[in-house]
Order: sequence, then structure tokens, then C-alpha cells
Amino acid sequence: MNEYIKNLYRVKFHEERDQVLRLDMNESPEGLPAEFVEEVKRKITPEFLATYPQKNRLARQVSAHCGLQADQITITSGSDEAMRLAFQCFGEQGKKVVTVTPTFEMYGVYAGMFGMEHVSVGFNADFTIPVERLLEAIDESTGIVVILNPNSPIGATYTDDEAHAIVKKAGAVGALVLVDEAYHYYHTRTFMPLLEQYENVIVLRTFSKLCSIAGLRVGYAAGSVQLIDYLERSQATFNVSNVGLLFAEEILKRPDVMELQRVAELEGRKWLVRQLEGAGYHVLSLEGNFILFRPRGDAARDVVAALKERGVWIRDYSSGLLEGYLRVSTGRIDYMQRFWDAFRATD
Amino acid sequence: MNEYIKNLYRVKFHEERDQVLRLDMNESPEGLPAEFVEEVKRKITPEFLATYPQKNRLARQVSAHCGLQADQITITSGSDEAMRLAFQCFGEQGKKVVTVTPTFEMYGVYAGMFGMEHVSVGFNADFTIPVERLLEAIDESTGIVVILNPNSPIGATYTDDEAHAIVKKAGAVGALVLVDEAYHYYHTRTFMPLLEQYENVIVLRTFSKLCSIAGLRVGYAAGSVQLIDYLERSQATFNVSNVGLLFAEEILKRPDVMELQRVAELEGRKWLVRQLEGAGYHVLSLEGNFILFRPRGDAARDVVAALKERGVWIRDYSSGLLEGYLRVSTGRIDYMQRFWDAFRATD
Repeated sequence: MNEYIKNLYRVKFHEERDQVLRLDMNESPEGLPAEFVEEVKRKITPEFLATYPQKNRLARQVSAHCGLQADQITITSGSDEAMRLAFQCFGEQGKKVVTVTPTFEMYGVYAGMFGMEHVSVGFNADFTIPVERLLEAIDESTGIVVILNPNSPIGATYTDDEAHAIVKKAGAVGALVLVDEAYHYYHTRTFMPLLEQYENVIVLRTFSKLCSIAGLRVGYAAGSVQLIDYLERSQATFNVSNVGLLFAEEILKRPDVMELQRVAELEGRKWLVRQLEGAGYHVLSLEGNFILFRPRGDAARDVVAALKERGVWIRDYSSGLLEGYLRVSTGRIDYMQRFWDAFRATD
Repeated sequence: MNEYIKNLYRVKFHEERDQVLRLDMNESPEGLPAEFVEEVKRKITPEFLATYPQKNRLARQVSAHCGLQADQITITSGSDEAMRLAFQCFGEQGKKVVTVTPTFEMYGVYAGMFGMEHVSVGFNADFTIPVERLLEAIDESTGIVVILNPNSPIGATYTDDEAHAIVKKAGAVGALVLVDEAYHYYHTRTFMPLLEQYENVIVLRTFSKLCSIAGLRVGYAAGSVQLIDYLERSQATFNVSNVGLLFAEEILKRPDVMELQRVAELEGRKWLVRQLEGAGYHVLSLEGNFILFRPRGDAARDVVAALKERGVWIRDYSSGLLEGYLRVSTGRIDYMQRFWDAFRATD
């Protein structure tokens, strides 16, 4: 029995969310345009569903989209699977995984799953990334460094110089840098160009956020041909559904649809920030399809519960820098209006 | 770097198969009834696609279907992911994985991926399972024993007594038994009842074969609450697409559709066997949606190539007991007729 798994704590997601206003996991609340979805659905036939998925076509499309070679891309079941594979391939038992905190929780989980030590460097009190301390934390015992561009739940970003410094320091000690760009498109600056210069970088992206198909589990990892080959060797034969591949292919063919999603979210986010700030709340809106704000007093948990009764799910933080803050996923204005109405009714 | 992955050989599936008659991977060639597929597709909305999958509902349905508790089931990305997770959780480096040969190739791959030694016990020359030699191969150094019920590519089966003997011997040396029932429904006898008596058994099933949604990647593992909990801890948070979950749920609600698929395949298989035997070929048709037959002379490889030119894909075996044999996946009569016409044209 694998002792790391035996001792691993996992959060379970057991509640059905399909009838609620989902603003707790940074999905797109509204989803893709209905006519686009119907158009793609017409390609789903009985024979198509019965056929094992073939992901080369999407890999070629993604590589063109990213300006890379096809064998520098591997398609994964969300970026989540890419993380897991990276840990399985390149994580070494007993070595350290360095991240900032707060950040996406699965990195800590995968550190535990593969017997690595999770070193988390706390954000600065002014909600900026502690780059100096992050660099100091990278040493000979480091196996993997994770940076999110932008970060979540605090949407802070790294400058190019900071990213280069982190990758260089990691490279000097033989560590891999995972650059998680789940929130790319909301924040257009990418660290994909690092791949031209460094061999110790893997960039992760997902179709779950802007591309609005979180339910279909499609993501990808980009890196050197060698690193991507290792990730591919560690995968199941067919790791992504063909319906997921189909939607991803069709989305990439439609930059107009992606732009529509981007603009709608940005409008909705700005609208919500105006309402919250207008009502006197402290709002933290950086990069990504989410904002943080602080309800009055110590009400965060009560607000989450009261909203849940009204079918609106958002997220609170129980400790650390974000204690007392709420995170709300953002999307089209009408969905933000529904949140705002429900929130004011509880306030 | 993980040395096992560094040294692992993987077959890549790079050819597009969507315009061919796919009889090479034991998918359903015809797929589900068109009206059923259209009905289910109506439930796929933009918001649905944008929502992270929730698999509890399917786990409850599957457990009722199998006569088990909900926490004795975990839903996986095909049964392939369940295999992989079982190796990750319960495989121990240096221990042995015991299978028969020929059998499903991924067990050897996962043995290599997790640093286990693959001990494969050759089939008897009369195409029966070498149960005695399989039992002998299970010893103190064995970590996992795999039995396929029925086996593939030779659709031989185990008796209840044989299955009990294998599980007992494995239990006595602390080994886990994976019972792979990918071809359940074609062969209705199940070893699921072993779970009532033994703690060292995991049964794997898939929706890829009879249920005809290989493209959607849905399977499950059944076992004790404890073993299933470990498998769940080792999964990604969202390992199966919600479209896959949706189709699996709707299929389980429609035993009439499953029965239709079962009857259509059986008719098609019997029809094909009649044609082949009528033309003087030696056919091996046991359990499962596939048959083996031997073309004249040493023509196997040539037949595969000639059929491929006509858009019909089947599989040959390059060595061992099945050298010279062809495997053809079976399905509805009209698809078998297409194969037969193409085959006769090459002969």
C-alpha cells in the first residue's frame, strides 16, 4: 500500500451544483453561446461516441495557437491531470515543492501524493507576491517550483524579470518550474516564451475557464519535446473524452467566441466591482475571472451560508491573509446582477 | 526524474479512425441508437458544459446496479484509469504483477510504470486459461494478480471455483486481485459476488464496450469501502467529464437500450462466425464482442494491410500463441456484412 496515499487528505465535492448560481469555483457562470454549443453538438453521433478519442488534431491546433511544435504539447484531462503527471514524472520523494500561499490547493495535494514536502511562501501583507522570499526558498532540495500566472485566489502576477529569475534559480538547482496559466486570456501576458530559452519549464493551460468547458476536462501542458514525451508516457492511453476534444477544437477555430467570452466577463467583473465599491466594500480585483471582497465585520462565513440558501455559491477563506474575505467568480453582467441582488438581500 | 517512466515504452495511437470501419479495438462499431443519443444530447446546455462534473449521482446508480453500497464504487476515466490508480495505490516497487498472456496490454505497461515485475503465464495451447500455472506463479513476492472475466484477446473465462482459488491464494500472500470485467454483459457471469467474501478484490468495469461510449471515458471500480476510498484519494478532483457521466446515467436508466446492444452484437457475431466457418476458416469465438480467426497461410499481416486500404481496421498478432490470427471486433450484422464483403474482396 502506498503510504503517501494512505495518509493523504482529500476534499470531496459531493454536493450537486447544477441548479445553483455557481460563483465558487471560477467556472464561467453563463457558459458558451447557445448557438455555438448547438452547432458543435450536431457533430456528436452514435459512432463518434463509440470511438476511442484521438487527440493529435487538437494537439496540432493548440501548438499552432501557442506558436510551438505539435510535440511540445500534450492534451490532458484539465490542467489538473497535467499537474499530477508532472509530479509523477518529475517530483522526487523527499524533495520540496515551492509555491506561494494562498494558491491553488491541488499543488499541496499532489506534493503529498508523491511524497514531496510542500514549502509555501506567504503572500506579502499588501497582497503582492513575495518574489524575494520565493527565490530564497528555492534550494538544492527543491524539486518543483509552481507559479500561477496570474495567481488564484489572489490574482497577482509576476513580471517577466521575476519569472526569468525564478526559472534560472530553479534551473541552477535542477528544479522544474510549473507555470500554471489557467487564467490566461483574462490576463493576456503569457510566460509561454520562457520555453524558447529554458528546458526546465512546463506551462499548463485549461479550457475550463475562459473557454467555459470545465465539465469536459480538457487542458494541456507545453514544454520541451523531451519533457512532453515523458508526460505522454505517464498518461492513460485515452485520457480525454472525444466530446471534450471536439469542443476544444471548435472553440480554437472561433476566436470571435473566445473574445465574446472575454469581453462579457470583463464587463461583468467591472460592473460588480463598481457596485461593491459604491457600497463601501474593500474589493481586491486583480487578474482572473474572480474578485475578492471583505463583507462588514466578521460576516464572511454567514454571508456564504445565507447566499447558499438562496442558491448562490461563493467561497470564503477560513485562515491566513484572506480570512474574512469572500471570493466571487465573475461572468456576464446578468449573472453578476443575480449575485448582487442576492447579496444585498442578505446584507 | 522518475526512472520507470523514463524507461517506459508506450504505443502511440496517432492515426485518425473516424472515417473507417473500426473493428480493431473492440469498440461498438455502430454505437448507441440515434434517437437515444439525440435525447441525451438535449440535456447538454452551455451552463452544463461550464460546470465541473459531479459524479456522486452516477456512483449511486452504479452501486444500485451492482447491488453494492455507493461508497464501494468509484467512477473513473474508463476502466483504464482504475487500473492505473490500483497500481499507484497498491502496487509496490519490486513486487510482481501476475497475468496470463495474451491479455490486455496495459497491465504490462502499468507494471512498468510503477516499477513492478510483470510475470505473464502463457495460455494453454488449446486456448484455455492455465489456471494451475497461474496459481503457482502467485507467491510471497506477488503484489497484484489480474484476471479478465472474460479475457481478451482470447475470450476464455474462469469458473467460480478457479476465481475463488486465485483470490484465496493471492489473499494468503497479501496480494490484490484485479478482476477486469470490461466485457461484462457480453458474458453475463460476474465475479462481483467475490466482494462479499474477500477484502483483496477490486472489480473493474467500463461503459466503453456494450454501453458504446468508449469516446467518453467512463468506467468504474468496485471493492471494499476501504480500497475504494484509497482509489478516490489518488484521483484528480474531477477525473471524468460531465457529458460522460450524463450518458452513463442515461444508459443505466435504459436497460432496454443495453439489451438491444447486447442482442445486436450477438446476432452480428454469430452471423460472422457462420460466414467464416462456412468458408472453411478456423474461428475462435468465445466470450466478448470480438472473434479470432486464422486466414489461409501466413497472410495475417497482409490481410490487415489490404483491409486497411479499404477503410476496414482489424488487428493481427505478431508472436506467440496467436501468431497468424486476426481479431475482429463484432457488432450489428450490417457492420459485419461490410467487413465480410471487404475481406472477401482481399482474399
